[in-house]
Amino acid sequence: MQLLKLGPAVTTARPVGAATRMLRLDGPFRMRRGGTLPHVDMAFETWGELSPARDNAVLLLTGLSPKAHAKSSADDPSPGWWEEMIGPGNPIDTDRFFVVCVNNLGSCFGSTGPASLNPATGRPYGLDFPTLTIEDMAAAAHGVVQRMGIHRLRAVIGPSLGGMTALAYAVQYPDEVANLVSISSAARVSARAIAVHSLQREAIRCDPTWRDGNYSPDHPPVDGMRLARKIGMTSYRSAREWEGRFGRERTELWDDEPFGIEFEVESYLEAHARKFVNAFDANCYLYLSRAMDLFDVAEHGGGLDAGLSRVRADRTLVVGVETDTLFPPHQQRELALGLRAVGRTVHHVELPSIQGHDAFLVDLDHFGPVIAEFMSGV
Amino acid sequence: MQLLKLGPAVTTARPVGAATRMLRLDGPFRMRRGGTLPHVDMAFETWGELSPARDNAVLLLTGLSPKAHAKSSADDPSPGWWEEMIGPGNPIDTDRFFVVCVNNLGSCFGSTGPASLNPATGRPYGLDFPTLTIEDMAAAAHGVVQRMGIHRLRAVIGPSLGGMTALAYAVQYPDEVANLVSISSAARVSARAIAVHSLQREAIRCDPTWRDGNYSPDHPPVDGMRLARKIGMTSYRSAREWEGRFGRERTELWDDEPFGIEFEVESYLEAHARKFVNAFDANCYLYLSRAMDLFDVAEHGGGLDAGLSRVRADRTLVVGVETDTLFPPHQQRELALGLRAVGRTVHHVELPSIQGHDAFLVDLDHFGPVIAEFMSGV
Repeated sequence: MQLLKLGPAVTTARPVGAATRMLRLDGPFRMRRGGTLPHVDMAFETWGELSPARDNAVLLLTGLSPKAHAKSSADDPSPGWWEEMIGPGNPIDTDRFFVVCVNNLGSCFGSTGPASLNPATGRPYGLDFPTLTIEDMAAAAHGVVQRMGIHRLRAVIGPSLGGMTALAYAVQYPDEVANLVSISSAARVSARAIAVHSLQREAIRCDPTWRDGNYSPDHPPVDGMRLARKIGMTSYRSAREWEGRFGRERTELWDDEPFGIEFEVESYLEAHARKFVNAFDANCYLYLSRAMDLFDVAEHGGGLDAGLSRVRADRTLVVGVETDTLFPPHQQRELALGLRAVGRTVHHVELPSIQGHDAFLVDLDHFGPVIAEFMSGV
Repeated sequence: MQLLKLGPAVTTARPVGAATRMLRLDGPFRMRRGGTLPHVDMAFETWGELSPARDNAVLLLTGLSPKAHAKSSADDPSPGWWEEMIGPGNPIDTDRFFVVCVNNLGSCFGSTGPASLNPATGRPYGLDFPTLTIEDMAAAAHGVVQRMGIHRLRAVIGPSLGGMTALAYAVQYPDEVANLVSISSAARVSARAIAVHSLQREAIRCDPTWRDGNYSPDHPPVDGMRLARKIGMTSYRSAREWEGRFGRERTELWDDEPFGIEFEVESYLEAHARKFVNAFDANCYLYLSRAMDLFDVAEHGGGLDAGLSRVRADRTLVVGVETDTLFPPHQQRELALGLRAVGRTVHHVELPSIQGHDAFLVDLDHFGPVIAEFMSGV
């Protein structure tokens, strides 16, 4: 396995932690909708030990924005985005499993994406990056798994966008996935989700500093990214949660700008957005957002059933949240019923979390036991 | 009654129809949160005949963006925004009632607002317009009613923002309202609605052509308004409706812009937004949007009950829609239960429309009979 050390030889668009490893997939890497990449660098982290038979691997695929750093480790003790879910004795038990989390193809935390340098020009790909699809992301993750000499994954697990990538993985490599876990995700996004994603992209595209994707890395479209993130937040969290947390409370951080921040909920959105705008690349956001809209498992056959019939996993878990408006419960039901209709064993759970789509990140009290129970049977 | 003829003597920020009348309320007009207007011009239309005793008047208050043109007439045969609801034999029956609809204070269709010329400077008020509240809008509408010599309204009716204005009217002039109709509205907006409104305002404020409110009338912040309108649409319509209407259909109107329009739902949003951006003034939008967030009937007493206890109407109707996420059903229940708790007679109806918040505009099949039945008892 050729692991690249981080350093001047490898350019990552955004800094990554010391536990992040890099792996180069030689090209040309053909993209589903046309175009090729000369090669693909993939950033990943691992936890636990790969068994000598290489038969205890679990692949974790992330949502739109996280890094591969899902869990702390000796090399990088900072908390990961799913810190409590992974580890010895945790629901994804590293005493049993070798866990691999990859940074998505198209993202900006080590893996090749629109913010990476285009070898042909020496400048970031920007909009010269070919159209990105969920299937391409699954293919790049598959390249990492193959290079590790793993022929069959014990489980592929993904929340949100990562759930679609996990499904694409199971559809594209049916004999290599023993268990499939789809979390707050869907077989395809709804018209409402397309609309929300489209507005997020428009917010970025309307920012004059975006410059049709040719912004300087030092001068990114901050206003557009801030607004895109806030629009996202209204789809990630539930109205009920905000009513309880914020109601009509005024913030002490009133600003003097006309029509500026006055309510607590506005202050909360601003704080979240500020954290995000400098952490994520705008073009990467556009590509990943669009990839989500384009995905439809029905394209892998003559309809939803035909697409899902390609999944051969022994067991599947479809779990979602009552208050999720981005990937609402009826979409999890569609996926669960669809998998059952083509003969899969399906565990389907609808959780009563009030945190909406983001619950899988913050409501471990509800999600932990469901993941733990399913994984105990893996 | 001093009615101003339209013409060079009266400046309206946006064109109004031939049926629109103007009335000047002499100032100073004191605003609830401070500041005064030297005078207030109010645009309105009427249908039906005022009885000799002036006891058959119904005041209709609009949502954020409509004009006073709720219904066609001989002077202006173009369809109004509630064409089928008003007229001889219609739910708001002009054989019985004299119906007055005013353009909101703060709007741009004849009534004084941020786009009107400031007599002190000869230029549009812009951000020199004082903070606008729902209570100010009710007071301006009340000025029109008073000048018509009407001492008690048979009914005050308002949808959405107009429902809040109707409630403020009933709270501020308790002896002058016999019947109160609140449609898809609330006693105060939720944290979620504040968030959505805040993002709409941010979209406008981030548009560089907004220029802190000092844009040229010929060069308004079109991008910001377009995005604000689209964000609004995601809160006005239900996910279920869009799933049925659009699903994942591609549009034939694909544009070539990177990340441009590809799905039918994106094309629908674009069409709605384009109609809106040149029709409405950006600063007026900001003021009216903020006014909605600021309104809380609890401010008219030591809490919700105390505020609502000021309402003295003989009968009230609170009607809303199951799929409304902007003014969700639990807010109509709060209003209905609150009015009942302070001794009012309340008709409370929750309609199964799938069009969400906008249903009152488009689902007359459901709304018509409810309004008709209530009005038959007025």
